[in-house]
Formats: sequence, structure tokens, C-alpha cells
Amino acid sequence: MAGLIKPLNNVYEQFRCLPGIGNKSAMRLAYHIIDMSDDEVRRLADTLLQAKREIRFCRECFNLTDSDVCDVCRDGQRDHGIICVVEQPQDAMAMERSRGFAGVYHVLHGCLSPLDGIGPDELRIKELLLRLERGGVKEVILATNSNVEGEATAAYLAQLLRPQGVIVSRIARGLPMGGDLEYADEVTLAKALENRTRISG
Amino acid sequence: MAGLIKPLNNVYEQFRCLPGIGNKSAMRLAYHIIDMSDDEVRRLADTLLQAKREIRFCRECFNLTDSDVCDVCRDGQRDHGIICVVEQPQDAMAMERSRGFAGVYHVLHGCLSPLDGIGPDELRIKELLLRLERGGVKEVILATNSNVEGEATAAYLAQLLRPQGVIVSRIARGLPMGGDLEYADEVTLAKALENRTRISG
Repeated sequence: MAGLIKPLNNVYEQFRCLPGIGNKSAMRLAYHIIDMSDDEVRRLADTLLQAKREIRFCRECFNLTDSDVCDVCRDGQRDHGIICVVEQPQDAMAMERSRGFAGVYHVLHGCLSPLDGIGPDELRIKELLLRLERGGVKEVILATNSNVEGEATAAYLAQLLRPQGVIVSRIARGLPMGGDLEYADEVTLAKALENRTRISG
Repeated sequence: MAGLIKPLNNVYEQFRCLPGIGNKSAMRLAYHIIDMSDDEVRRLADTLLQAKREIRFCRECFNLTDSDVCDVCRDGQRDHGIICVVEQPQDAMAMERSRGFAGVYHVLHGCLSPLDGIGPDELRIKELLLRLERGGVKEVILATNSNVEGEATAAYLAQLLRPQGVIVSRIARGLPMGGDLEYADEVTLAKALENRTRISG
């Protein structure tokens, strides 16, 4: 930004490249860095470098981990016969927060997006097939996002996994809990109706 | 956050301490750091450390600079007889952007705030008086913020500077340019009325 001294402008430019940080936030953060103590800035910088150095992908499921195999894959209590396929590590984390899943994960690291040049080879699909080949898997739950790319990825995987002799399922789409019918979009409502569950009779 | 691997959680906690970054943004940024290349993270960390190392206060006006005296104070074209007193370096920067001021600055680094334990000794007020003692100053413009603390600081400085034999002025308070009368608060409107300027007659 014009009029900013060079080292401060460098910080501003770096922050501006981060997601969700606009010009004003970047400027505010840059000035905040100057107000922080030397120790605090050193700790911030070290934390970033350490995370980058220590975090890698789990050899099994490609979720993030700081060891060779992630905590979920190492956990003997969990059902290794059910694999939940998600797009990103964040998605696996959201699943964990819901406490609704006791199986293991497989992180694709993206979704099919031909416009962005992302085809099956750019995702961890080969690795999923290798896990199935090793046997012991009863069900694959496709938990990609419920948007166009996520649905396309789920459809592609469903077809690919059909000959593997495992159950393939898709997470339910419907009205979010606490969601008002009045404000739901048409596609969600149509899905909610289509996937209705019988209560009695 | 629960369920997050340690190095990632550390990044999350660091980001969460920054101003304007909530839990969700901190999480998004933490995952973004992992997605960045080693070089990019190294550059980000280095930029922060470099800024912290190189930026100091101008010996004259206490604005931020990467040399001994800031660009404004070194500029012979500017009127060193008019000092604009601001709370923070950001305020001097905002003034510079307006291109409406050709004098020099004095940055207090805060405003009087007894509740936060900030009295005159915590601000660069002594240094302002020293500048006036050296002579050559015709006018001091008090450009502290237009909130309670800023007004109190301006009132305090006005009284302190009265015996110094310089003109002391306060920036105008009124309706912001492009501001609707309808949406202006009462105090702003009262000030705008009180400080009205005669157009003719």
C-alpha cells in the first residue's frame, strides 16, 4: 500500500494473500505485529514453521497427522471395515466433532473439478482402491460435499467402486437440523422429500 | 480445539490471538498454512520477523520507520512548523492518504485512558513538549480520535500547550462526506451544527 514503509508493507502483502483477509484486516494485522513483543512474533513464526515441518499425511487415510499413521487409523476400537470418504481433512474433523462415526476415513484432498484441471489422478482415489484390495472393508460412505463437484465426485466413486463388492453409501441430504422449511432451497427440499424416512405404518 | 493434532492446534491458537480473527477464520488459516508450500511458509515467517526487527520509532515524531528518522520528518519540503498530533501510526498514515496535510506528525502511541492505567507518562507527551522547546513550531493540530478518550486527550493537551505560545487547534468534527443526515448520531449532528461555516452574507 502507498506510503507504507517497506517491512510493514511486506507484512501487509503477506497477510493479504491469506484466505478471508481483506485489505483492512491485513493492515490491522500488520500493525498488530509491530505492537507484539519480539518474543511473541518469534513464537508465531516458529509455530508456523513447526506445523509445516511436522504435519504430514497419514500413510493409510491421508488425513493430517504428526506421526506416520493418524490417531484414528491407529485406534483399535474403531471399525476399520467402514471407510468414510471426505474431500478435505477439515471434513473428517467436522465428522469427528459430530461423534456420529466410529469407522475410519479416507481423505481425497479435493474433488473432481474438470474446469480447474482436477481429475481422478489428482485425488487420492488410487490409494482408496488399494485399501479396498487389501480386504476387510464392508462399506464405503461417500461424504463429499453436497455441491455440484462433490456430487459428481460421489457419482464417479460410486461407479468405480461398484465392482469391488462393498456396500457404497452416500450421506443423507435433507433439511438441516433447526432449519426452517420456509427458508430451505428447492433442491434441498426435493432431496428431503425424496429421502423421507417412514415413522410408522 | 478438540481433536486437532498438536502442531495444527498451535497454529490455530496463535491465529486466534490476532485481532479480528475468530475461531472459524483461525481454523481456516491454520489449514491454509498446511496447504502452503514450505517456501511460502518460510517467507511468511521471515517477513514477520524482519518487520519486527527493522521497524522502530522515528527519533523525532515516533511514527514507524525503518531508519533513524522517518520520511516525513526528513522531508525538507514539508512545513516543520505545523505538528499534527495523532494517537497511532495508522492515524498518521490515514492523514497522509488524504493528502490534505503538508506539516509533520507527532505520534502519542495511545490516548489517555485512566481505566486502562494509561496516563500522560505512558504517552509520548514529554517528547512533544521537547520538540516545542526547541522552537520553530507555530501550530499544533490535535488530531486524536473523536471518541471519549480522544477528546479527553485533546482537552488535556490543549491545556498543557496553552503556555507554550503556539496556536493549538483541533480537527473539525461534523457530518462525514457522503454521510446522510438521517443516519448521523446526535452528537455528530450537534457538533456539525455548532461548527457550521458561513458561506455568504
